[in-house]
Amino acid sequence: MFNIAVAQSGGPTAAINASLCGVFEAAQKYSEISTVYGALNGIEGILYDRLTDLSQIITTEHDKNLLMTTPSTVLGSCRYKLKDFGEDDSEYKKITETLNKHDIKAFFYIGGNDSMDTVMKLDDYFRENNIDIKVIGIPKTIDNDLPETDHTPGFGSAAKYVATSLQEIIRDSRVYSIPSITIVEIMGREAGWLTASSCVLRANGEPAPHLIYLPECEFSEKKLYHDIEKAQKQYKAVIIAVSEGIDCVRSKSGITDAFGHTYLSGVGKYLENIVRDHFGCKVRSIELNVMQRCGSHIASLTDLEEARRIGGAAVDEAVSRNNTGMMMTFARISNNPYRVGIVPVDVHKSANKARFFPKEWINEEGNNVTIDALNYFLPLIQGEPAIEFQNGIPVHFRLDQ
Amino acid sequence: MFNIAVAQSGGPTAAINASLCGVFEAAQKYSEISTVYGALNGIEGILYDRLTDLSQIITTEHDKNLLMTTPSTVLGSCRYKLKDFGEDDSEYKKITETLNKHDIKAFFYIGGNDSMDTVMKLDDYFRENNIDIKVIGIPKTIDNDLPETDHTPGFGSAAKYVATSLQEIIRDSRVYSIPSITIVEIMGREAGWLTASSCVLRANGEPAPHLIYLPECEFSEKKLYHDIEKAQKQYKAVIIAVSEGIDCVRSKSGITDAFGHTYLSGVGKYLENIVRDHFGCKVRSIELNVMQRCGSHIASLTDLEEARRIGGAAVDEAVSRNNTGMMMTFARISNNPYRVGIVPVDVHKSANKARFFPKEWINEEGNNVTIDALNYFLPLIQGEPAIEFQNGIPVHFRLDQ
Repeated sequence: MFNIAVAQSGGPTAAINASLCGVFEAAQKYSEISTVYGALNGIEGILYDRLTDLSQIITTEHDKNLLMTTPSTVLGSCRYKLKDFGEDDSEYKKITETLNKHDIKAFFYIGGNDSMDTVMKLDDYFRENNIDIKVIGIPKTIDNDLPETDHTPGFGSAAKYVATSLQEIIRDSRVYSIPSITIVEIMGREAGWLTASSCVLRANGEPAPHLIYLPECEFSEKKLYHDIEKAQKQYKAVIIAVSEGIDCVRSKSGITDAFGHTYLSGVGKYLENIVRDHFGCKVRSIELNVMQRCGSHIASLTDLEEARRIGGAAVDEAVSRNNTGMMMTFARISNNPYRVGIVPVDVHKSANKARFFPKEWINEEGNNVTIDALNYFLPLIQGEPAIEFQNGIPVHFRLDQ
Repeated sequence: MFNIAVAQSGGPTAAINASLCGVFEAAQKYSEISTVYGALNGIEGILYDRLTDLSQIITTEHDKNLLMTTPSTVLGSCRYKLKDFGEDDSEYKKITETLNKHDIKAFFYIGGNDSMDTVMKLDDYFRENNIDIKVIGIPKTIDNDLPETDHTPGFGSAAKYVATSLQEIIRDSRVYSIPSITIVEIMGREAGWLTASSCVLRANGEPAPHLIYLPECEFSEKKLYHDIEKAQKQYKAVIIAVSEGIDCVRSKSGITDAFGHTYLSGVGKYLENIVRDHFGCKVRSIELNVMQRCGSHIASLTDLEEARRIGGAAVDEAVSRNNTGMMMTFARISNNPYRVGIVPVDVHKSANKARFFPKEWINEEGNNVTIDALNYFLPLIQGEPAIEFQNGIPVHFRLDQ
């Protein structure tokens, strides 16, 4: 008999709790696993011995169902980077101490690029010091920018939120008889996956967004004006999806308020101002903000089920196959019918690395994406989970008040 | 036999098309009504004779179902204010000409405060000139600020969107172990109804938003700092719901960019900056933007059904009861069980007037609302419409491309 621990790290998504659920459920299949501990606030929970017995929290099928449709991280999160143990191994000793104290033989870390760095370093340390504790990474990020995996849990739900909201914004933008330009800013500092996913509306015959700008493509204001002029010939209300990470001059424009404070604003607001100045027509910008990463009420069922499945597969990998130092990944077998397998990959291959939107899926003009991108995205947003409502509001699984 | 016309005006909501549906359906019960015309872009459609036969557009039950769950205005909208006919009656003559040309004996206008001005002026003109055309106003606005009616169609869906999104933002804000302040800006330039409605989360045991600021209450930055300090003693992540219309100094702060352009930003962004300066902790602001007025995918079924019903009641009022110059209103009979009647009110009583959030429903500290407010709001957000999905995206009823 031994115990295992699981923790959640990085930015919230709609699917991290589904992966937690998957870990918890899979562990219950193994008679040799006694307790599944949840560490509070990611690796900090292991460092400071803040563990909670998940079976005390998730007690019924109803709890599991709520957990599946509750966004963000029920155990809390962190942005904690472990030092290099070659220079300072004190954190590693503390972690080992906590894990040994609770007889934890496997640790599962649900997170993105940075969290995979933690998985990698811990596994390296345990191997070097002959410590028999398995470490497995379970991917999540709405940015979809983890290498080696076809896509990441959390991305499909974010994409479904973006498409749903964007379609409503499109309806909203078409009501007046005057020309207008609407700029929608979508998350993704380095990779344009989520912004690119807005192309899915085409599958239902919706031509907007008419322009899509990604960080993977060179951006210039001159080109933007030219693209808008061209789009205006065809569409009264021009809709633009723009990644927060595109390279424009806002960081250099030194916007300050009356008190001399630098005034931080998103790329959308910046573009709104310059486009209004240039065209003189009705221009507005909309930031989908954190709602796009925690919009559980319009989550993708495919995403949630896959997140649960990959959480379970991580437990199998460590316990059945005695493996460690791996990140679990999705390998797509086919688009139509959509089929996907789960494959472990050496975590060294994905830690601290980013996967960018493929250049060959960007159109020649650099202002939209191709049909291959559409075919890639569509399966990931399929299906709607059953949401439980109470007093007209979705019910969330909550530990804190 | 005669014809009728209907038009939509003002800002989009999730329920305006439901009222259009109600008008269309009710008209079909009357054998004396031949054609139901939809005027494009509100009263502009009547002025410029841009009418469409609704039976050519809404042909099946499926069309009606889609219309019910499609946000914004399928016939387009306008912000057109009729001149005073005592000074210049040329527009009125054009309108009468179009209506007579198509043998239209009743005109239904779905809109907010400004649109009721149009209803009032048209009715006054028709009466003065002995023109037998009925004019009836059908209320809509997410602001809920039309006088005489208990609430307005569109408000319940906006409130449900705000509560649902806010709850997800609350989950998102609680993940890290550090203190934080989240400011959510909600629509309502003059009236705080929608911001106040964020209190509904309390019905499910959620204490946030911890602070609620409305335009109806005096606001000062000093008070805000004091309120936050107090809230921080109890909550690590303080959540603030603030109406876009609160009276703060942002309009006087003269924010400009490097080019000297005035930099317009919302109250949320402004407060984010001053609160960060004051407290030095993690502060962020989120604008729910136009998504809150067109979030059909999380609409209130109560709202949509009432919107449909009040559209139908308007037709009955004009055709069965031969009435004109009225705005249809909701009169609440009881909260629990929720019961509501529909009553016509002289449109002069509501045109160009606003109804504010009751002072007696604001707490003594002026930073939250009372249980009476909660009891008022709750029935309006109940129920979820069945949404049709195609390719993972809600299907919208569309006339345009």
